[in-house]
Amino acid sequence: EVVATSERYAVRRLPFSRLGDGDVAFFERVLPGRVVSGEDEVKPFNVDWLKSMRGCSQLVLKPQTTAEVSQVLRYCHERNLAVTPQGGNTGLVGGSVPVFDEIILSTALMNQIISFDKVSGILVCQAGCVLERLNEYLEEQGFIMPLDLGAKGSCHIGGNVATNAGGLRLLRYGSLRGTVLGLEVVLADGSALDCLASLRKDNTGYDLKQLFIGSEGTLGVITAVSILCPQKPKAVNVAFLGCQSFAKVLETFTTCRAMLGEILSAYEFMDEKCMELVERHLKLSSPVTGSPFYVLIETSGSNSTHDEEKLNNFLEQATASGLVTDGTVATDDKKIKASQHFLFHKSLRPGFTLWSLRERITEALTHEGYVYKYDISLPVEKLYDLVTDMRARLGQSAKNVVGYGHLGDGNLHLNITAESYSHSLLDAIEPFVYEWTARCSGSISAEHGLGFKKKQFIQYSKPGEAVALMQRFKAMLDPKGILNPYKTLPSAP
Amino acid sequence: EVVATSERYAVRRLPFSRLGDGDVAFFERVLPGRVVSGEDEVKPFNVDWLKSMRGCSQLVLKPQTTAEVSQVLRYCHERNLAVTPQGGNTGLVGGSVPVFDEIILSTALMNQIISFDKVSGILVCQAGCVLERLNEYLEEQGFIMPLDLGAKGSCHIGGNVATNAGGLRLLRYGSLRGTVLGLEVVLADGSALDCLASLRKDNTGYDLKQLFIGSEGTLGVITAVSILCPQKPKAVNVAFLGCQSFAKVLETFTTCRAMLGEILSAYEFMDEKCMELVERHLKLSSPVTGSPFYVLIETSGSNSTHDEEKLNNFLEQATASGLVTDGTVATDDKKIKASQHFLFHKSLRPGFTLWSLRERITEALTHEGYVYKYDISLPVEKLYDLVTDMRARLGQSAKNVVGYGHLGDGNLHLNITAESYSHSLLDAIEPFVYEWTARCSGSISAEHGLGFKKKQFIQYSKPGEAVALMQRFKAMLDPKGILNPYKTLPSAP
Repeated sequence: EVVATSERYAVRRLPFSRLGDGDVAFFERVLPGRVVSGEDEVKPFNVDWLKSMRGCSQLVLKPQTTAEVSQVLRYCHERNLAVTPQGGNTGLVGGSVPVFDEIILSTALMNQIISFDKVSGILVCQAGCVLERLNEYLEEQGFIMPLDLGAKGSCHIGGNVATNAGGLRLLRYGSLRGTVLGLEVVLADGSALDCLASLRKDNTGYDLKQLFIGSEGTLGVITAVSILCPQKPKAVNVAFLGCQSFAKVLETFTTCRAMLGEILSAYEFMDEKCMELVERHLKLSSPVTGSPFYVLIETSGSNSTHDEEKLNNFLEQATASGLVTDGTVATDDKKIKASQHFLFHKSLRPGFTLWSLRERITEALTHEGYVYKYDISLPVEKLYDLVTDMRARLGQSAKNVVGYGHLGDGNLHLNITAESYSHSLLDAIEPFVYEWTARCSGSISAEHGLGFKKKQFIQYSKPGEAVALMQRFKAMLDPKGILNPYKTLPSAP
Repeated sequence: EVVATSERYAVRRLPFSRLGDGDVAFFERVLPGRVVSGEDEVKPFNVDWLKSMRGCSQLVLKPQTTAEVSQVLRYCHERNLAVTPQGGNTGLVGGSVPVFDEIILSTALMNQIISFDKVSGILVCQAGCVLERLNEYLEEQGFIMPLDLGAKGSCHIGGNVATNAGGLRLLRYGSLRGTVLGLEVVLADGSALDCLASLRKDNTGYDLKQLFIGSEGTLGVITAVSILCPQKPKAVNVAFLGCQSFAKVLETFTTCRAMLGEILSAYEFMDEKCMELVERHLKLSSPVTGSPFYVLIETSGSNSTHDEEKLNNFLEQATASGLVTDGTVATDDKKIKASQHFLFHKSLRPGFTLWSLRERITEALTHEGYVYKYDISLPVEKLYDLVTDMRARLGQSAKNVVGYGHLGDGNLHLNITAESYSHSLLDAIEPFVYEWTARCSGSISAEHGLGFKKKQFIQYSKPGEAVALMQRFKAMLDPKGILNPYKTLPSAP
C-alpha cells in the first residue's frame, strides 16, 4: 500500500469546498456515464506511476469535448472545488495525481485526431491522444511525432505539452516550445482560449500558448494541440557502443556530432549499473558488455547509403582512436563494413532491442524498491561527476546509485534506489543534490518538471524575482488556485 | 521629409509626463556622455528604416549595462515618462521608433559578447550585438547563428528576440522560441529579471522568457540573450531555379523536401517582378531569366560529396519532370554534374550573389516610392493567390504588386508600391488583405510583428479573449503603460 502523500509530506489541505452529492449529480448530468466514483475504480487515478504518491480523490471526470471541460471548470470555479488534470499519469514528480481530494479531470476520452495536413506536416488533435498512437498514425502518412519517450504507450500529448516533455528526439527536432504551433486551453474559470493556429509562423501579439507549455496544469487545462511533425526518415541506424570512461563518452559525442552532423538524432548514455538492472529485472541482455559506460547513437536521414557511409566513417574513427572498445549496429541493411568489433543486426524496426535497453531503465529501477529520482541539466563535462560524488556520499546507505540520460542535451537522470522510502536517506540526498547542481548553474529539473515533489526546490534554479512573477501569473489566471493545487510553485513558508 | 506619424495616423498622445531639464540632467549623471539630445543627432532615431514613420523624441539614451537600463526605467516609471526601446531600427511595422516624444532607449552600446561555449554551442551576449558580427564571431569557432536576415548588418540580437524574428534559416533551425535558452530583461519598474540560463533544457516553473520573445519591447527591455547555435555546416550549396508557374514552385518544394531531407536549409521564392526591381534599382542581374517564378534553394550539411549527390539527384529529377526549366548552382566545388541547363559558379561564400538577389528585394522596393508591406502566413497552396487577387483588385492604382518570401515556412511577403503614400490606395488594400488572410486562417503578421502599423488588425488573427488576456499581461507588467506605448496591442476604441 502506497503511503498517502499528505501523511508522508505533512502537507496541509487548502480550504477548498468538499465534494457533495449535489456536485456529483451535476457532473453526471454534464458527463452522463463518464463520471467515475467507486473507490476501487478511482484508485488507479489517485496513485502515480512510480507508486510514490497517493491522493484521496473520490471522483474522476472524463469529458470528451472542450465545451464539457469548460462546463466542469466553470462549475468548480464557482463552487471552489479543486481539480487535478490528468493525462496518461506517467509523470515522475507527482504532478498528475491529487494530493488530497481534488477532482481528477482525465483527458482519457479526448482522443480524437482533428486534422493532419500532409503538405505542412501539421497535426491537430485532442489532448488525450496517446503519443504512440499519434506516431503510428503519422508513420502511415510518412511523418513522425517530433518527440518520443519511454512512456509513449501511455502518455497523452496534452500531458506532454503541459509538462514540456523532452525525451529521445529533442536533440534533433528541438523542444516543444518550437514544435507546438497552437493550443486550445480552458482556463480556471471555464473560459476557453483558442490559440489553436496551424501556422509555422505567427507574430500577432504575445505568444500566450507558451505560458501553458510546461505549466503542469496549474494555469489552464490543455484540450487540443497543434504540432509540427517532421517527415519520417527514410533510413534509421542505431549503434550501441561501449566506452572505457566517461571522458571517452564525451569525446565520442564531440566526434560523432562532427562526423554525423545533421543525421544525428539521439546520443544517449548509461552506466554499467543501469545495464545490470535492466538485465536482472527485465531479462534484457545487452549484446555489448564489459564496459563501464555505454552509448546509444541513432541516425535518421533521407539517404540510407549516405547515412551508412557517415556512420561507418565515424565508427572506424572512433574505434581506431580507442574511443570505443566494443559495439553493435542495427541497420536497415548490411552495407556497413565497419571494424571487426561490430556485430550487425537486421530488424524491421532498426535498433528496437537496443533502444529497449535504454528506454526500459526507468522501469527496471522500479523493481529495486523505492527510487529517488533526479533529472538534472548540467554542462556535459560535469554530468557524471554528480553520480560519482553522490555514490561516494551515500556509500552503503543506498542500494544503487546510477546515471544515464540524454547526454546530447546535457541531461542526466540520476537515480538512487533503496529497499523502501526513508527520511534519513532523503536527507542525505537533498538538498545536497540541488546545491551541487546550483553551484554548476544547472537545472534541478531538466524535463520532468516540478510537480509536487520538486516545487520547494525551484529557488535552486530560478531567482526569487522570477518565482514571484510566476506567482503573479498564477494569481491572475487562477485567482482561487483551484487548478492542480500544491504543484509547481512553492507553497508559502 | 517624412510625415509625422501622429499627423498621418491621427493618433492621440497619452498623458505621459513631458521631458524636463531636470530629467535630462538626471540621465546625464547616470549615462555620462551617452545622452543624445540635439535635434539633428536624434533625428535618425526618430525615423524608421522604411522612412514611413517619424516620431518627435528629444532624447536618446545609450546605456552600456543592465544596471544602467534599470536605473533609467526606474526613473521613467516614477516620473511617468514613456520609453521606446530601439535596437538596430530595422523593423518594418514601426515598432522601434517613437510615435510622439517617447524617450529612445538604444541598445547600440550594449554590444559585448559575454560567453561562448564550444562544447554546447551556447552563446551569451548583450542585446545590442549586431547579428552579422555575432555570426562572424561564431564562424571563427565553427558555429553559426540559428537565424539570418537581410537586415543582419544592422539589426541587434535583442531586437531580433523582441520581435521574434524569423528569416532565412527558420526552415532548418526552427524559431527563436526553441533556440533562445535564456533572457535577461528589465521590467517597466526597473527591476531586472534574470532568466539567462545556458541550458538546453530547464523545466523549473513557467517559462517567463517566452512572454518577452515577440513582445516588441512592450513588456520589458531585453538586455542579454542566451542562444543555442548550430555547428557551421561543412558544405553549403545554393541553387537558383526558374519555374513556369506557382504550381510548379509548390511541386518543386515537395520534391526537394523529400530528396534533400535533412540538408535543406532554405526554400525561398520570388516572382519575376521582384527580379525586375532588383535589377532596375540595384543593378543586380540574375543569371537565370525568363521565368514567371524563381526559387532559391540552399543545402547545408556535413559532407560535401553526399550533399552534392543529393542536390544533383534532385536537380536531375526536377529538370526531367519539367518542374524546373532553367537554373544555376553555386557550390564549393564542381563535382555536380547536372543537366546542361545548369551553369556552375564557384565562390568563396557559396551563393553570395544568388542570395543577394533574394535578400535585397526589400531594399529594391524602397526605391519605388512608398511601399505597403504585408507579411502573411498562409497554407502554402494559397500563398500566391493573394498576390494575384490583389493585383487584379488594384489594377492601375498601384505601381507594382509583388510576392516573395519563405515558401518553406508558408510565409508570403506581399508588397505594393506607389509613387507616394495615399489614403485611398491604403483603403483599397486594407482591410481586404486582412479579411482575405483571416478567411484562410492565416496570420496577418508572420514574422514582422504588429508594431504600430498592424496593431489595430490583431483581431484578424487572434480571438477577442486572447487579446483581452494579452492586455491583462501588459497591465500587470507595465501598469503605467510607459514601455513602447501605442504598439502591439490595439488601443481602446
